[in-house]
Amino acid sequence: MLNFSRYQRVPVVNFPQRKWPNKQIEKAPIWCSVDLRDGNQALIEPMVVEEKVEFFNMLVKLGFKEIEVGFPSASQIEYDFLRQLVDRKLIPDDVVVQVLVQCREHLLKRTFEALKGVKTAIVHIYNSTSTLQRDVVFGMDREEIKKIAVEGTKLVKEYAKDFPGKIILEYSPESFTGTELDFALDICTAVSDVWEPTPENKIIINLPATVEMNTPNVYADQIEWMNTHFKNRDSIILSVHPHNDRGTGVAGSELALLAGADRIEGTLFGNGERTGNVDILTIAYNMFSQGINPQLDLDNINEIIEIYERCCKIPVHVRHPYAGKLVFTAFSGSHQDAINKGVKAMNERKSKIWSVPYLPIDPSDIGRKYEPIVRINSQSGKGGVAFIMETNYGFKLPKGMHKEFANVIQSISEKSGEVAPEQIMQEFKKNYLDMKEPLHFKKCKIEDLSDKDSSGDESFDTLAVVTYTDHGVEKTYEATGNGPIDAVQRGLQKELGIQIKVLDYSEHALGEGSNAQAAAYVHILDIETGKAVFGVGVSSNITRASIRAVFSSVNRLKK
Amino acid sequence: MLNFSRYQRVPVVNFPQRKWPNKQIEKAPIWCSVDLRDGNQALIEPMVVEEKVEFFNMLVKLGFKEIEVGFPSASQIEYDFLRQLVDRKLIPDDVVVQVLVQCREHLLKRTFEALKGVKTAIVHIYNSTSTLQRDVVFGMDREEIKKIAVEGTKLVKEYAKDFPGKIILEYSPESFTGTELDFALDICTAVSDVWEPTPENKIIINLPATVEMNTPNVYADQIEWMNTHFKNRDSIILSVHPHNDRGTGVAGSELALLAGADRIEGTLFGNGERTGNVDILTIAYNMFSQGINPQLDLDNINEIIEIYERCCKIPVHVRHPYAGKLVFTAFSGSHQDAINKGVKAMNERKSKIWSVPYLPIDPSDIGRKYEPIVRINSQSGKGGVAFIMETNYGFKLPKGMHKEFANVIQSISEKSGEVAPEQIMQEFKKNYLDMKEPLHFKKCKIEDLSDKDSSGDESFDTLAVVTYTDHGVEKTYEATGNGPIDAVQRGLQKELGIQIKVLDYSEHALGEGSNAQAAAYVHILDIETGKAVFGVGVSSNITRASIRAVFSSVNRLKK
Repeated sequence: MLNFSRYQRVPVVNFPQRKWPNKQIEKAPIWCSVDLRDGNQALIEPMVVEEKVEFFNMLVKLGFKEIEVGFPSASQIEYDFLRQLVDRKLIPDDVVVQVLVQCREHLLKRTFEALKGVKTAIVHIYNSTSTLQRDVVFGMDREEIKKIAVEGTKLVKEYAKDFPGKIILEYSPESFTGTELDFALDICTAVSDVWEPTPENKIIINLPATVEMNTPNVYADQIEWMNTHFKNRDSIILSVHPHNDRGTGVAGSELALLAGADRIEGTLFGNGERTGNVDILTIAYNMFSQGINPQLDLDNINEIIEIYERCCKIPVHVRHPYAGKLVFTAFSGSHQDAINKGVKAMNERKSKIWSVPYLPIDPSDIGRKYEPIVRINSQSGKGGVAFIMETNYGFKLPKGMHKEFANVIQSISEKSGEVAPEQIMQEFKKNYLDMKEPLHFKKCKIEDLSDKDSSGDESFDTLAVVTYTDHGVEKTYEATGNGPIDAVQRGLQKELGIQIKVLDYSEHALGEGSNAQAAAYVHILDIETGKAVFGVGVSSNITRASIRAVFSSVNRLKK
Repeated sequence: MLNFSRYQRVPVVNFPQRKWPNKQIEKAPIWCSVDLRDGNQALIEPMVVEEKVEFFNMLVKLGFKEIEVGFPSASQIEYDFLRQLVDRKLIPDDVVVQVLVQCREHLLKRTFEALKGVKTAIVHIYNSTSTLQRDVVFGMDREEIKKIAVEGTKLVKEYAKDFPGKIILEYSPESFTGTELDFALDICTAVSDVWEPTPENKIIINLPATVEMNTPNVYADQIEWMNTHFKNRDSIILSVHPHNDRGTGVAGSELALLAGADRIEGTLFGNGERTGNVDILTIAYNMFSQGINPQLDLDNINEIIEIYERCCKIPVHVRHPYAGKLVFTAFSGSHQDAINKGVKAMNERKSKIWSVPYLPIDPSDIGRKYEPIVRINSQSGKGGVAFIMETNYGFKLPKGMHKEFANVIQSISEKSGEVAPEQIMQEFKKNYLDMKEPLHFKKCKIEDLSDKDSSGDESFDTLAVVTYTDHGVEKTYEATGNGPIDAVQRGLQKELGIQIKVLDYSEHALGEGSNAQAAAYVHILDIETGKAVFGVGVSSNITRASIRAVFSSVNRLKK
């Protein structure tokens, strides 16, 4: 029995004036990656300098313009890394590096040493402001806590004066979500008053959900409250730094954007202390999926995953939005069928807007592939198997055939679980294309009789001379009919006494160009038993393909 | 470059009358586990019947009262599983099983066959209602789609009449998030009108976020709109079934509760198609962390993880809220320090309410342990090392000693990454307890002189006779002082010419009872060099422990 009475909800602001629920996200925020500090700090095996360099280069390539590179005054590795970035000239002109530091003189001194040679840097100072931390960690009152921030700001201002590059100040009232809003406003205002930002030289005020403490709408209320209470809002970049303790970091970030945030600090795939920082990729792809330019170049998610998993030594979960191995699969038969129909409708209508059931985005837009979308198991329906045959192998099975072939696959999957596309193709060959017993079609000569004298039934304009083996014994027959399939089928009837009727026939090219093979499908009815089956044939010659399909179907009947 | 222009946002309801942002979650919803159907369906290796039985028994043990057991008419395995539950009498009287089925006669017939012998069952019918699916999948208009649902309801009603047990109807307008709200209301009302529920025999109307399509506030608006528009709300259990395509399934569920939902369908750790269903455990633990009884027995998360990972063959991610291996760790030094202080303050104040920075809940409340909370790496501060020494090994290092020992550990972690608690203890032994060269303390006789004639300096009331080895050579000295430490130290000074001053001393029991060992710490100053170091000694005899500490410190000075 859970001991729930040990816990209580932290007080929330009463803010019925909120406007954020009426809004929607219109554009991307400023993104700031904190992978190399906040994310790296919480890795079981932190990155070594070379891994950090590779990760930094990837972040630059993805389009991040603000990148927190560490806490150089607290760690020799992070100091060395920043120096390498400078010395190896790895920081592009349009990228701003950010360094974290506490409001203490000797740490600030060392931080500015580490920044030597950087053109523009964000110096990110913070101190903890929550009711709880003031009480149990610092034993300080509001004024004393405020003094730390104010004195820190003064120090940064002094160091910045002598620094040859540009310094942007970022201040975080750390543990903001546990801080009374009036105090958070008070301390941010005090810092801002010292720094004296302008609309041209803004200060970054960063409001972290250091620990997620409430449903995400409460965070949005807090952000909007701050957003509407700053006296110099036009001189402020309002930043958020969400974590994910309650599993709602992405939601908190999105609602914070509605509430007026300009900037988001987060990490790729959500590294960071405990449950991690918010995953920037998910927020960005969410925007993308609604037609908003996320201002990041995220069209090759596999590359990001590869570098991430190698440097961070943490796997991306199979159900991680957009990135997980399973997120573009569909196991349910009805889902597979709907996806199939959705793709078909889009193609037929030449629709420019992606709209396919159960697939919020086209996986190929982010470098994922169609092939693994549908996995076939015993609970998959007929649509899934047909989809695999079409997308993986180009066979457009006639609709009536879906069920027949799906049954073949289902009997396998009930025994052995999931069936891979390769196995589906193998079964397709075994049950249709290679169905050559007892009757094995060898060759055929087709003669067009239409130019000859109309002898016999005038509608029978085709003569077929068919060579085949019956239980291994080679035989030949001649037959006429109104077209090759008809002639071949009539011959079979006459020679072998097989009473069949062709119910349907279709054929299509497999691939493009004149060298392409054709796939032919016939649906035949055994008149005696009433049983109907499909047969399939493939050949570069469309006639041969269709005759093979007839033989395939007859063999399936006899099976 | 992402091709974002291929996408657009689905239209949302304009609903400024919403009240949900002013509310807060007050109580647990009705939970319905869909692990065995929706979750299992999307596993790479679906569960076999015995695994399903084990999983079902766990769900019962956790306190689920509504459990979807499958789609028995679509899968032989799910049919067999339900029959086993009945035949083996595994369904407790207070647990209701739920079966999914499409609105089709032969499937409904088989479903009711599968239910034979069940006392109460939820028959869950659904059909897809979204604008997109009506168009591309079914090619039907609203009335035709509505007819499917209405006819299905009539069929269930007929079968229910002859069924000996109780049947509760659940209807889902599948793909609800892509359905126009007026149509969703219309079709749900039509179903309800046929079923004729009452406040005593409610119908379950389930509104799935089959695909997450928008920020979670939009889902909340949709739920509240429906909630306020039903004409017979008191005869309806309003259920939600969120998925996680945008990574906001938990948020969507929580905001839906604010918006009036009574019931949540989801899975443990979020199994299900693509990114999965919503994770019920996270929602429940979120409630728990705010002092709300989640009405589930979730006090042993490790057991849940073990059964889940074994049956589903999917790992729980290391950062998964509440469950991941890393979520009760703290890598940052300042976090470790704050946790340390928070725990201490709680203990001192005998606080009944849990309030520790960076730890939203006490891990031990859900069966997790304190030990792995702090992991030490090169970026950890001094607080973390001290915390490990105290929580794992009982050594309460004096505050001044934190930095000295943390430096020892940091030099190791900078080379080899994370340092395990065992390794920290090993270093503690090596650098303090086993620091026995060049001077190895052997034994000591302490004589209290206070009862004797006051000969010599009257304040020197203690005589120490110390036996030790110096570079392996055994020696003995006698010295007096005002207490054992003073006497021992003066003796060292006299015999070996070591000019030291004891700056501080502390000692505490390691564990409880009279057999407990004591740990002693001395902080000594080398008067010649101005260098100060700590020494530590352990013994069941408190005097011997303190003398060992003095020798430890002297050896450290000489190192």
